[in-house]
Amino acid sequence: MSTTWPADAYREMSETAADLPKLQRRIRVGLGEEPGDLLLVNAQVVNVFTARVEPASVVIADGWIAGVGQENWSAKEVIDVGGRYVAPGWIDSHMHLESTLLLPSELSRLVVPHGTTAIISDSHEIGNVLGVHGIDLLIKASQNLPLDVFFMASSCVPATAWEDAGAIIGVEEIEELLKRPRILGLAEVMDMPAVWKAEPYMLEKILAAQHARRVIDGHAPSVVGKALQAYVAAGMRADHESSSVEEARQKARLGMLVQVRDGSIAHNLDTLLPLILDGELGDRWTLVTDDILPDDLRRWGHLDRLLRQIVKAGVRPEVAIRQVSWVPAQHYGLTDRGAVAPGYRADLVIVDDLSELHVWQVYKNGRLVAHEGKYLGPEEVQTVRAENTVHLPRLDENAFRLRPTASTCPVIGVIPGQLITRREHRCVRLQNGEWVFSPDEDVALIASIERHRASGRIGLGLVSGFGFRRHGALASSVAHDSHNIIVTGTNPSDMLQAVQAIAEVGGGFAVVSEGRLVERLPLPFAGLLSLERAETVCEQLHAVRRAAQSLGCTLACPFGALSFLALPVIPELKLTARGVFDVVRQEWLQL
Amino acid sequence: MSTTWPADAYREMSETAADLPKLQRRIRVGLGEEPGDLLLVNAQVVNVFTARVEPASVVIADGWIAGVGQENWSAKEVIDVGGRYVAPGWIDSHMHLESTLLLPSELSRLVVPHGTTAIISDSHEIGNVLGVHGIDLLIKASQNLPLDVFFMASSCVPATAWEDAGAIIGVEEIEELLKRPRILGLAEVMDMPAVWKAEPYMLEKILAAQHARRVIDGHAPSVVGKALQAYVAAGMRADHESSSVEEARQKARLGMLVQVRDGSIAHNLDTLLPLILDGELGDRWTLVTDDILPDDLRRWGHLDRLLRQIVKAGVRPEVAIRQVSWVPAQHYGLTDRGAVAPGYRADLVIVDDLSELHVWQVYKNGRLVAHEGKYLGPEEVQTVRAENTVHLPRLDENAFRLRPTASTCPVIGVIPGQLITRREHRCVRLQNGEWVFSPDEDVALIASIERHRASGRIGLGLVSGFGFRRHGALASSVAHDSHNIIVTGTNPSDMLQAVQAIAEVGGGFAVVSEGRLVERLPLPFAGLLSLERAETVCEQLHAVRRAAQSLGCTLACPFGALSFLALPVIPELKLTARGVFDVVRQEWLQL
Repeated sequence: MSTTWPADAYREMSETAADLPKLQRRIRVGLGEEPGDLLLVNAQVVNVFTARVEPASVVIADGWIAGVGQENWSAKEVIDVGGRYVAPGWIDSHMHLESTLLLPSELSRLVVPHGTTAIISDSHEIGNVLGVHGIDLLIKASQNLPLDVFFMASSCVPATAWEDAGAIIGVEEIEELLKRPRILGLAEVMDMPAVWKAEPYMLEKILAAQHARRVIDGHAPSVVGKALQAYVAAGMRADHESSSVEEARQKARLGMLVQVRDGSIAHNLDTLLPLILDGELGDRWTLVTDDILPDDLRRWGHLDRLLRQIVKAGVRPEVAIRQVSWVPAQHYGLTDRGAVAPGYRADLVIVDDLSELHVWQVYKNGRLVAHEGKYLGPEEVQTVRAENTVHLPRLDENAFRLRPTASTCPVIGVIPGQLITRREHRCVRLQNGEWVFSPDEDVALIASIERHRASGRIGLGLVSGFGFRRHGALASSVAHDSHNIIVTGTNPSDMLQAVQAIAEVGGGFAVVSEGRLVERLPLPFAGLLSLERAETVCEQLHAVRRAAQSLGCTLACPFGALSFLALPVIPELKLTARGVFDVVRQEWLQL
Repeated sequence: MSTTWPADAYREMSETAADLPKLQRRIRVGLGEEPGDLLLVNAQVVNVFTARVEPASVVIADGWIAGVGQENWSAKEVIDVGGRYVAPGWIDSHMHLESTLLLPSELSRLVVPHGTTAIISDSHEIGNVLGVHGIDLLIKASQNLPLDVFFMASSCVPATAWEDAGAIIGVEEIEELLKRPRILGLAEVMDMPAVWKAEPYMLEKILAAQHARRVIDGHAPSVVGKALQAYVAAGMRADHESSSVEEARQKARLGMLVQVRDGSIAHNLDTLLPLILDGELGDRWTLVTDDILPDDLRRWGHLDRLLRQIVKAGVRPEVAIRQVSWVPAQHYGLTDRGAVAPGYRADLVIVDDLSELHVWQVYKNGRLVAHEGKYLGPEEVQTVRAENTVHLPRLDENAFRLRPTASTCPVIGVIPGQLITRREHRCVRLQNGEWVFSPDEDVALIASIERHRASGRIGLGLVSGFGFRRHGALASSVAHDSHNIIVTGTNPSDMLQAVQAIAEVGGGFAVVSEGRLVERLPLPFAGLLSLERAETVCEQLHAVRRAAQSLGCTLACPFGALSFLALPVIPELKLTARGVFDVVRQEWLQL
């Protein structure tokens, strides 16, 4: 396919339904005056307007649907879909593209065969590293794909005032970003305290989005009652953080689109499914993955997995499909998609049946882009780059020596499978006033090193839960949300070497043990994304995980856990390049 | 109330949810940190998101809702609504404001006490008279009212190439209009033949709206099958012309918002109600009035009447209310309204119960604007004017002499209660080659006189159905869509005088008999709207109707019927200033 892939196969969102000749042709094709490009016959169309299935043909011209019904159309190519079900392409309306570690072209390869034809990414990871320029690079890197990649303008870069990000996205930058055709609104407003304190620096971003008549995403974990009322009153109309029934119920009642999240990190679908089945969310819900790793996408699929789960639980498949197509399209103002109807983009998923929802074919803009799991998109190697973003000062082992003021210290307690941590107090082992690893304790050193400006700022703390047996260190340039270097280990030497192993490839994950680099996953694109094929990234990811396990680590996803330990918007204790922060009390801790 | 009505009580749509201090206050009020302006307690809130009723309080700050729930808020003013039902304000999403004959301030007086807080007007009547300037005048005349008046950019001015309108609204004017904050999209695309012929002059207007990411209204009476497919493929996403079940079903399936119409002229609700009850329209429907006369608004009410009817027929009231609030608000991008929820405009209707839907109070932007049917809006007299728009050449009786080429003539057959006419062939009475009235025949002379440029262009024809007994003439400056002067009567003398009676007051309706002006309703605002109070206009309207009846006219709405006889987009025969036009065959008739 690669040689035949036209450069303009996928047009930018700014190019609307059609230029004049294409609109003229679409009308003539709909009227039956001239043949379309493609005619799907013997189809069962999932109608999102009536939430019913209808036997129909679908005629397509220039990538847009010209007719859907039992009318008698003709086309250059006729495909008998054998009674299969034709649905609108699926939309994951809240993802962080960077969490996949993949360039958009590789993400497209993974998700399109599973029926996804659009995602909406809050790319605040690259925003924290490179600001507006970073988001522009991802926009550029996601052109001309069978997956439409939309973005939200990152509202919280840096995530808090206590972080050292590589860039600041202020009100002016938000206004600038909202002019981009593929940027749909203001991304998740994570800085809830700033909202409740009515801080102008935060509210002005909200006002900028409202003035531009764009949607604003929320991020309100565990928020209910008056705090939720005020948060919604401020303008946030979607939320993907519900982890309890009562929370989701309250959010839907107040009009938020409840983005039921089930990704690699957080799994909320089982909990929220009863609410969907009871109809308590009305149609104010959709399915999203938020943060998902490439190997989970390979293993599980994408939205198809979640659809299958809810259909098996009893949600009508027509409704389930509507909730991941028409509903998010409407919410985010994507009026060109989300339905199999005339005048809509021919983004289609054809499934064998409505229970297993096995994807047979996927069409993007009327073009076959996946068939029986095989991706038929472009094979070109992506050339957009964002290199040399890891800037460190000269470091030595002394950077990783912690001298606590007392032998009982606050320790960041990792809870397996969760983003929140526990504030622990542990009696630790000291030698000459310096913390040293004890095999009996499961407490390790952890450091956050500012990497954007080589400022030399290093925060040190202690962490429990990684399970190191004696030696080793894990380091990562993915450290939400500022993406400084985070490293944990049992001794300064391994930690230093792990940091250097990352720095020399421009970012990534590294595992070091006894002075030896055991495994490494390079992420040279802003220190966040790999330049490799999805298959290779998955293999490398497995390799670094196995290497971490060889050091004793029992966490299923050690680099995932590590990367969230730097995020001071999630309770209880987190570590930034400025030290250990108590998120609950909003104060720095002195070790 | 008039003296206390603040000049900025109602802000323009361009002013979004709040400026910073108001947003800050709303957050604090939602949090319960400071009192709101108004607190409604002991309320049952109609939740459009869940389509359920919930006991709740509603707290309002600066005209916006800051909280809805069982939280404990305080406010400067607390109103116990006594267990009544609080719903979002109702929206009539397809009206022609000019059909009410009222200035917006008077229309507001009539409809607000019935629960309407917003209308969307396609003001192509004034567009045909004064172009963009006319629409701007109506925008100006509808500022600072408790009724938000939105507009669509008129797509068909003139309606067809066979009309002599006062202005042309081309692509550039559409682009200009779409920049106005209160213009929401492209108005009903009535020129269906131009769409099917893929005429660039029409399609470029559609493209302009699509490029501006705005909604496009349809107008597709009786259109089904491939013609409908092509029409929808061109971009029209709403339609108010369904008069049959099959037509509405097809439109909803293709994703059109079916605007079930029930006004003074056309009554489609009875026909379409079974579809609503069967769920065949999904939630793709709303209620509109399209063209409604002021006395019908006084007598019947507005959307409350239609809601009452459908609720009695079995539609759940929560659903019925959602369909005239949230659904049209979403469709037209009015994201600031349509729900009783935090962050939405406090446009509220409080009804005593959910079966009779008797309106107790109406709030606009948090301000009480109607109580038990009493309007509490501004009493100031509107000062915006659009005068001197009737320009006629010097006329004499000879202008109204018809000399047919044969004694059997095509006659425009009026069908009572319908906009379509019948093409009749009648043997008519001639004297010296000139048509003369015969009391046995119920055929009258009809003339359309170009009135915008005094071009002297006059079309003559014959019409049946008015029922003149012997004498008299009816004339009107309201003549869809070009609004030339239309006059029908039994003799040239009465017809001339009726035209002059209109011209001397700048437009209106006039009834003349035996050389005497019997009654007149002056419409000096562009020849379309009265400057009088609604009560006066209704009295004058009754007076001209009674006067017409005194001439023998049996039509319930003679001036309504007359005004649509000039509209050459509705079959079968119509009359313009260029003569009689066969709409079906798209050709001029030679009499």
